Amino acid sequence: MDDILEKLHRAEITLDEARSEVAKRLLGSLEHNIDPGRELRTGIPEVILSEGKTLEQIFDISSEFLRRSGRAIISRITPEDASVLERRIGPEVIVRREDDARILVLRRLDMPPSKEKNGRIAILTAGTSDIPAAEEARIIAEELGCETLAFHDVGAAGIHRLVEPLKRIREFDPDVIIVAAGREGALPTIVSGLTEAPVIGLPVSTGYGIHPKGETALFAMLQSCSPLLVVNIDAGIVAGMVASRIARRRGKSKG
Amino acid sequence: MDDILEKLHRAEITLDEARSEVAKRLLGSLEHNIDPGRELRTGIPEVILSEGKTLEQIFDISSEFLRRSGRAIISRITPEDASVLERRIGPEVIVRREDDARILVLRRLDMPPSKEKNGRIAILTAGTSDIPAAEEARIIAEELGCETLAFHDVGAAGIHRLVEPLKRIREFDPDVIIVAAGREGALPTIVSGLTEAPVIGLPVSTGYGIHPKGETALFAMLQSCSPLLVVNIDAGIVAGMVASRIARRRGKSKG
Amino acid sequence: MDDILEKLHRAEITLDEARSEVAKRLLGSLEHNIDPGRELRTGIPEVILSEGKTLEQIFDISSEFLRRSGRAIISRITPEDASVLERRIGPEVIVRREDDARILVLRRLDMPPSKEKNGRIAILTAGTSDIPAAEEARIIAEELGCETLAFHDVGAAGIHRLVEPLKRIREFDPDVIIVAAGREGALPTIVSGLTEAPVIGLPVSTGYGIHPKGETALFAMLQSCSPLLVVNIDAGIVAGMVASRIARRRGKSKG
Amino acid sequence: MDDILEKLHRAEITLDEARSEVAKRLLGSLEHNIDPGRELRTGIPEVILSEGKTLEQIFDISSEFLRRSGRAIISRITPEDASVLERRIGPEVIVRREDDARILVLRRLDMPPSKEKNGRIAILTAGTSDIPAAEEARIIAEELGCETLAFHDVGAAGIHRLVEPLKRIREFDPDVIIVAAGREGALPTIVSGLTEAPVIGLPVSTGYGIHPKGETALFAMLQSCSPLLVVNIDAGIVAGMVASRIARRRGKSKG
Amino acid sequence: MDDILEKLHRAEITLDEARSEVAKRLLGSLEHNIDPGRELRTGIPEVILSEGKTLEQIFDISSEFLRRSGRAIISRITPEDASVLERRIGPEVIVRREDDARILVLRRLDMPPSKEKNGRIAILTAGTSDIPAAEEARIIAEELGCETLAFHDVGAAGIHRLVEPLKRIREFDPDVIIVAAGREGALPTIVSGLTEAPVIGLPVSTGYGIHPKGETALFAMLQSCSPLLVVNIDAGIVAGMVASRIARRRGKSKG
Amino acid sequence: MDDILEKLHRAEITLDEARSEVAKRLLGSLEHNIDPGRELRTGIPEVILSEGKTLEQIFDISSEFLRRSGRAIISRITPEDASVLERRIGPEVIVRREDDARILVLRRLDMPPSKEKNGRIAILTAGTSDIPAAEEARIIAEELGCETLAFHDVGAAGIHRLVEPLKRIREFDPDVIIVAAGREGALPTIVSGLTEAPVIGLPVSTGYGIHPKGETALFAMLQSCSPLLVVNIDAGIVAGMVASRIARRRGKSKG
Amino acid sequence: MDDILEKLHRAEITLDEARSEVAKRLLGSLEHNIDPGRELRTGIPEVILSEGKTLEQIFDISSEFLRRSGRAIISRITPEDASVLERRIGPEVIVRREDDARILVLRRLDMPPSKEKNGRIAILTAGTSDIPAAEEARIIAEELGCETLAFHDVGAAGIHRLVEPLKRIREFDPDVIIVAAGREGALPTIVSGLTEAPVIGLPVSTGYGIHPKGETALFAMLQSCSPLLVVNIDAGIVAGMVASRIARRRGKSKG
Amino acid sequence: MDDILEKLHRAEITLDEARSEVAKRLLGSLEHNIDPGRELRTGIPEVILSEGKTLEQIFDISSEFLRRSGRAIISRITPEDASVLERRIGPEVIVRREDDARILVLRRLDMPPSKEKNGRIAILTAGTSDIPAAEEARIIAEELGCETLAFHDVGAAGIHRLVEPLKRIREFDPDVIIVAAGREGALPTIVSGLTEAPVIGLPVSTGYGIHPKGETALFAMLQSCSPLLVVNIDAGIVAGMVASRIARRRGKSKG
Repeated sequence: MDDILEKLHRAEITLDEARSEVAKRLLGSLEHNIDPGRELRTGIPEVILSEGKTLEQIFDISSEFLRRSGRAIISRITPEDASVLERRIGPEVIVRREDDARILVLRRLDMPPSKEKNGRIAILTAGTSDIPAAEEARIIAEELGCETLAFHDVGAAGIHRLVEPLKRIREFDPDVIIVAAGREGALPTIVSGLTEAPVIGLPVSTGYGIHPKGETALFAMLQSCSPLLVVNIDAGIVAGMVASRIARRRGKSKG
Repeated sequence: MDDILEKLHRAEITLDEARSEVAKRLLGSLEHNIDPGRELRTGIPEVILSEGKTLEQIFDISSEFLRRSGRAIISRITPEDASVLERRIGPEVIVRREDDARILVLRRLDMPPSKEKNGRIAILTAGTSDIPAAEEARIIAEELGCETLAFHDVGAAGIHRLVEPLKRIREFDPDVIIVAAGREGALPTIVSGLTEAPVIGLPVSTGYGIHPKGETALFAMLQSCSPLLVVNIDAGIVAGMVASRIARRRGKSKG
Repeated sequence: MDDILEKLHRAEITLDEARSEVAKRLLGSLEHNIDPGRELRTGIPEVILSEGKTLEQIFDISSEFLRRSGRAIISRITPEDASVLERRIGPEVIVRREDDARILVLRRLDMPPSKEKNGRIAILTAGTSDIPAAEEARIIAEELGCETLAFHDVGAAGIHRLVEPLKRIREFDPDVIIVAAGREGALPTIVSGLTEAPVIGLPVSTGYGIHPKGETALFAMLQSCSPLLVVNIDAGIVAGMVASRIARRRGKSKG
Repeated sequence: MDDILEKLHRAEITLDEARSEVAKRLLGSLEHNIDPGRELRTGIPEVILSEGKTLEQIFDISSEFLRRSGRAIISRITPEDASVLERRIGPEVIVRREDDARILVLRRLDMPPSKEKNGRIAILTAGTSDIPAAEEARIIAEELGCETLAFHDVGAAGIHRLVEPLKRIREFDPDVIIVAAGREGALPTIVSGLTEAPVIGLPVSTGYGIHPKGETALFAMLQSCSPLLVVNIDAGIVAGMVASRIARRRGKSKG
Repeated sequence: MDDILEKLHRAEITLDEARSEVAKRLLGSLEHNIDPGRELRTGIPEVILSEGKTLEQIFDISSEFLRRSGRAIISRITPEDASVLERRIGPEVIVRREDDARILVLRRLDMPPSKEKNGRIAILTAGTSDIPAAEEARIIAEELGCETLAFHDVGAAGIHRLVEPLKRIREFDPDVIIVAAGREGALPTIVSGLTEAPVIGLPVSTGYGIHPKGETALFAMLQSCSPLLVVNIDAGIVAGMVASRIARRRGKSKG
Repeated sequence: MDDILEKLHRAEITLDEARSEVAKRLLGSLEHNIDPGRELRTGIPEVILSEGKTLEQIFDISSEFLRRSGRAIISRITPEDASVLERRIGPEVIVRREDDARILVLRRLDMPPSKEKNGRIAILTAGTSDIPAAEEARIIAEELGCETLAFHDVGAAGIHRLVEPLKRIREFDPDVIIVAAGREGALPTIVSGLTEAPVIGLPVSTGYGIHPKGETALFAMLQSCSPLLVVNIDAGIVAGMVASRIARRRGKSKG
Repeated sequence: MDDILEKLHRAEITLDEARSEVAKRLLGSLEHNIDPGRELRTGIPEVILSEGKTLEQIFDISSEFLRRSGRAIISRITPEDASVLERRIGPEVIVRREDDARILVLRRLDMPPSKEKNGRIAILTAGTSDIPAAEEARIIAEELGCETLAFHDVGAAGIHRLVEPLKRIREFDPDVIIVAAGREGALPTIVSGLTEAPVIGLPVSTGYGIHPKGETALFAMLQSCSPLLVVNIDAGIVAGMVASRIARRRGKSKG
Repeated sequence: MDDILEKLHRAEITLDEARSEVAKRLLGSLEHNIDPGRELRTGIPEVILSEGKTLEQIFDISSEFLRRSGRAIISRITPEDASVLERRIGPEVIVRREDDARILVLRRLDMPPSKEKNGRIAILTAGTSDIPAAEEARIIAEELGCETLAFHDVGAAGIHRLVEPLKRIREFDPDVIIVAAGREGALPTIVSGLTEAPVIGLPVSTGYGIHPKGETALFAMLQSCSPLLVVNIDAGIVAGMVASRIARRRGKSKG
């Protein structure tokens, strides 16, 4: 803020101009510290969780996001709602829709997808039912400019299936590995014991009986004998976003 | 009971003898169905859980067991209490005391240990802290005449450590495998995926943070993608007893 | 691997042949240890849990199983999905469908059912609502070549109903007994106290009020005063598979 | 209140007397409805739970109870505190002290114990560790003038032990049966299925592993297939008090 | 059994008759002790819980009950299923149907309802939503020959509403009081503090937020400062059955 | 009650009149202490929770409330039920219907809305999904005559959004602030650290994975490092009612 | 900030002075919005929770608080630690020590206690064991300049005990009532139904059996049928602080 | 493995040498895939959790680690045990002992500490009680060659305290930020919303009342509106190890 003071001191600006400029900055003072425009600048968009919102609210927020940043990512959306949104959102928007992962990505035609590759993320799933959560993570990572490599159905009940994927992942040299697993959630523990890269455990809400909704997998990952980072159950979005943070920073460092 | 009737009918026994015999059987009628003398005959002793009992009660029950069946097995006993019991129990009793497993076995001198080998039980532990629970199981199994083979510290965080033990276990050809694990409890899942023998998961109360007392391991074993049988946390006694039931039956079949 | 070296040393094979053979074995090195073909050889098939999978995925996996091993077992399948699969699966496949147990077994015509009886498994249920879970176990056991004997509705609220079934079970001389119970889950405790065979408690998701979905039965079986092995709630498949492991091994020993 | 009005109307009392009398009654109006002197009149004393109170508070409340009703019952008291109280409480008080049940009963010499027998309560325990809770119930019941009959160690793991006690209990014809059990808590279910009398399940905080502090027994009793009334874990006092309410009312009816 | 022996000894019966009689008694030996015909003789019928059963199973069990004991009580039945059963059950059966309480009572025309009044049960509810559970209890009690008196909507948030009902209940002199409450479940505590009769707390699955399904009411009743007996959440059937046990015994004593 | 006595004493009223008056007051004696007419006088109406009630019950209770106090507030009502009620309730009633907040307010035409402003309540929400619960609180507060000021979507993930709303709230000088938040529930903690007014945390049932129904937000508010008052999850009604109690009392004090 | 600009514009300060002043304010810019000096100005001190801190840390923080604001309040301190602190803290400090409530208040001699009465807070406890938590609240409230009125041992098991205290509380006309209760936690519900003042439920960690540490009381208060505000278990400090916020604001309004 | 074959083929090695070499490699075949020497090569040592191990076991494992890798890190060690170990471990070992963090690092004199800086890790704590867990993370990170920057006591109850630390952290440009918080655990959410770096939430077992041992902080971090990675409660070791994995990889990329 010295510049304003100096300009005023040197009479390069009027008192009113100084006042106005200071007011503008002060209004933004807290914001300045906490970086309100970060999402836009870093390209890491907020994701719109459709659960608990009406279709109308989703449409309004998506439109606002498209207007402000050129892109809107909507998670946990039903195919029905996705269809309605697709129809309403207009022709000037490119749509990426993945019904299994329940994700809808909207991108303004005038906003070209990022060319740069920002890092590499490997993804593993223990079983077929874990794929949707893993796909959430993969799509977010790709939208954030990361390269991904995924292998499915290599769970702990038959660990020989891990050998080949792990070899290929080692060659891929990922910045971080996301491992999705439900039931007893043992796969991330095993993978973390076999690699040097940081591993994010993504518990999935599969299972039955006691703690059937992924709680067991979550607890097991938190208790793991191998060092693991964990996200909430079915939090593919979160895994994808933080993995991208990790990968992008390393990517930039290398650049 | 037809035999009594027939004998009475044929006057081979007197009415009093018939009465006495019938009374004996009727007193045992419910018992006959539910087999009150089973413990004694099958050699599978009840185990005295010392927790929640006074030392005096433990002593009394142990003495009664020694008198009736020649052996008393006391679990979860503190070294202090074990010392007191040892001193009080008298010279005509052989003592096997394992302080780590907190077990005390008392056997009357006039009751020789079983010679026959009743089956084979393999035991694995994931970490050092899981050994006491596994030892509970091993001692019970040995007391019940089973042969045991144990490997320790081969947990899921470094599964390469499993290769050699598994090979040796396969050669041992166990009737059942007990796998003790705390924390995330993944080891039984992995072992069950790699062997043909039935696997008993024995969750151990190690861990910290959320569900720290073995609950996570228990839940994970119940949710396992590989077929597992599970016992309560730290229930080495139960694992040893049921494993022995399995092994002994197979042992006898082979005999 | 000495054989290859020797053959190469003796020039019985060329260097290329040696390379090729070693590569083949090394690719399978980890697999060799962990026995990838076990399912096929032992005849213990993996079961396809239909929950959390799309019908398309179930169909694909079933077809793959049929192709590879001649049989596919699908659990927790709705009657609607079962009907669709039945229609699609083609004429060269024998279908065993049990809607109450929600199981569908597909078997290629060219794969005859196993003739040999691999052991004996007794099954008890406490109430009418426990039958579906018990049926899961029974069908799996039968598919794995075991003989079964089942009695229903003999729960703890009227234990006199147990007398006759227990007598018949004792005559059947099972290798293992599966006892299914919901609500307070007391039946396995009682049965284990009355028999010599190992008992598997199968908690069932019946009940209401506090812990209504079988948790109480599960906890009670884990806390049982009689030695019990336990599986997850409604895990009839798991109970059937491990019971078969036990029974088959004993069966073979006897053979 | 018509009487006061009439007396005033007839000038049998002065206005002041009327005022005073009305005030007395009005102060007691709410009390009159809710019966403040019930404890004293019915002889069902409040029990002083020593947990969470200082020894000084226990002493003060006990003294007040002795003064007001001639008796004080203190539960969950340590032997040390019981000794201190005994010494301090003075010679004009009879002391009944049961360290296992952690109960101390104080009775003024000038208050003779009730002669009348107010009903009959049978008590069963599943194991040795359940006896203290059952003793709490028994002592309360006896203090309230009920006759008791108790059998111990007849738990569900060996139900043949139940036959004889049940026969004797049937002869005793109790107004209510209290059944104490920890671990899996199956005994009350079995007993309720075998008797006509109302059964109170008293869960006890024995056990280990998952839900180790009697929660499993509590849940199992609440989920019981036989109709049961349940009290909190280790709530021998409550069981004894309500059982006495039941027994006394029936006792009076018969009188 | 001496009588048979003596008769056979005295040749008053043939060997075959002796055999047959002994067989009959022995088959009933365990049953004799545990009283298989109790339900029939005491008139306390088993209740058919319709949840977890198919309509076909309910119909079959009801028909069996009607045939054996002249009455069938079905709980938690939907109006739709009740309508179907009513139509199928035939003209020779009297139907009592209470859709709010989800109970259906079927009674053979040739079995007249019990005339005798077997005791008195008072019933209170805290709120409108607690009425169905209370009605379950009331109908069972009436079917078991008890007189009932019920007051609704007198919960703890406005305890002045309790005054009049309590006065009338005191005049009714019930053998036991059932108090149904959801939410915070405070009413049974208050009532038990104001009456001499034993109180059964019946927690109801009303509420929202944390522990919304009646768990809070259940826990609160178990923790109550006043002595309470508790049943499971929504267990109106259990409350009614045990309350009837209490009331009938006292009723008989008075008779 | 002295007045009646005096009047009777002075013969200003007859004995019958005195009796009648006393009876009237005595009927209200307990009520007098606990203030039965409080709702009416203080204008704080009871709210009718529609969950767990039939539409018929809601209609009856609403009609009774309208008759007695001129107003009925119905919460958690579906739009369908609201429509039915609106149609049935008749023309002499003003309807305020807020479908998002699931509230229906009915007010008799002859009961004018309160003019006086009884205090000021500020309301904040962390996200879009928290608005319905906050609206419940706002509508109740307004119905109780409080002025409200609300800001939405200012949650902890971007606290710069808080700056402007907090400034405006400080100018508004509220008597109390209600802060609604789901997920991790951090916003009330932050707000309480930044203001002098008492803060009520209103946890909302948004979230997913572990403790997904607002439990996490509830626990976090209870554990908050800033002093917070908390209500149950989604308890907008409760927050609004107690906030109004606070605001009205301060409002009156100022008046 | 206009003042600095104007002064600089009018050359009343130098550029350096302007810079320095702006820097100072900007450092405080975020702070300015969020009011860093609030504690000092409002007299609501932060409370030092001694749990989880070493005695050395407590001493250091207390000294810092004394230096900055003239007062330090330490909660949950053991008598032993309190004695040490008292000795170390020096003669120029007045000590208020309440061992039952585990609170230590230190006040610099040169900081006179507030004379003004800032509002009125009533406090009720259900039982003797609830007094320490209530005392925490009372001492905090008094330290914050509020007048308090407390009644103890008036719990729900004998609500007639409530009549007199409630009458006296109504005369006291409190701004807010704190009601402390453990066990079933019913008292706040009853009190809130009987008064106009806002009620804060303070759950206390008394109880036994299921949810024994005050959880039941907490849940019951959250589920209460009467509108209640709730704090965490044993959070007397929080209750006292927020109650003071409420009372002070109303107190000021009246002044 | 071609090299051995070729050498044997070319007779450069004998058959025995070939056998021996192949055996060595095959023994390591599984290991080769899963990298047994990883810890040694990558310098990321296993940490010895002292809980659940005897002092003797800790000493033995530490000695083995020292021997094999030159370093041993022991966590959660009591000062008493640390002193004993220090004394026993001998003079040729450098000891780093941090009693607050309960860590003991032993390093052989002949193994110089790593010179290279492998990345940068920032650490924040919400309160004083969170420091030990954060220190665990910091020491591990430093042992793994990472540079650290830590700020303490900047929790959510006064977020103005965050401004300065965040500015300095931004200048530090960390690869990852670890944020330790107990109680309501809000700080990581706030920090993640204000920075670009990946954030690891480290829940700490501070708190009281409901979920007092850090569970609330853990759940809140998992439910966070900002993308967070989470480790188990008090898992400073895990946080430090995975953070180091992230930082080292980025560090290497830059190198």
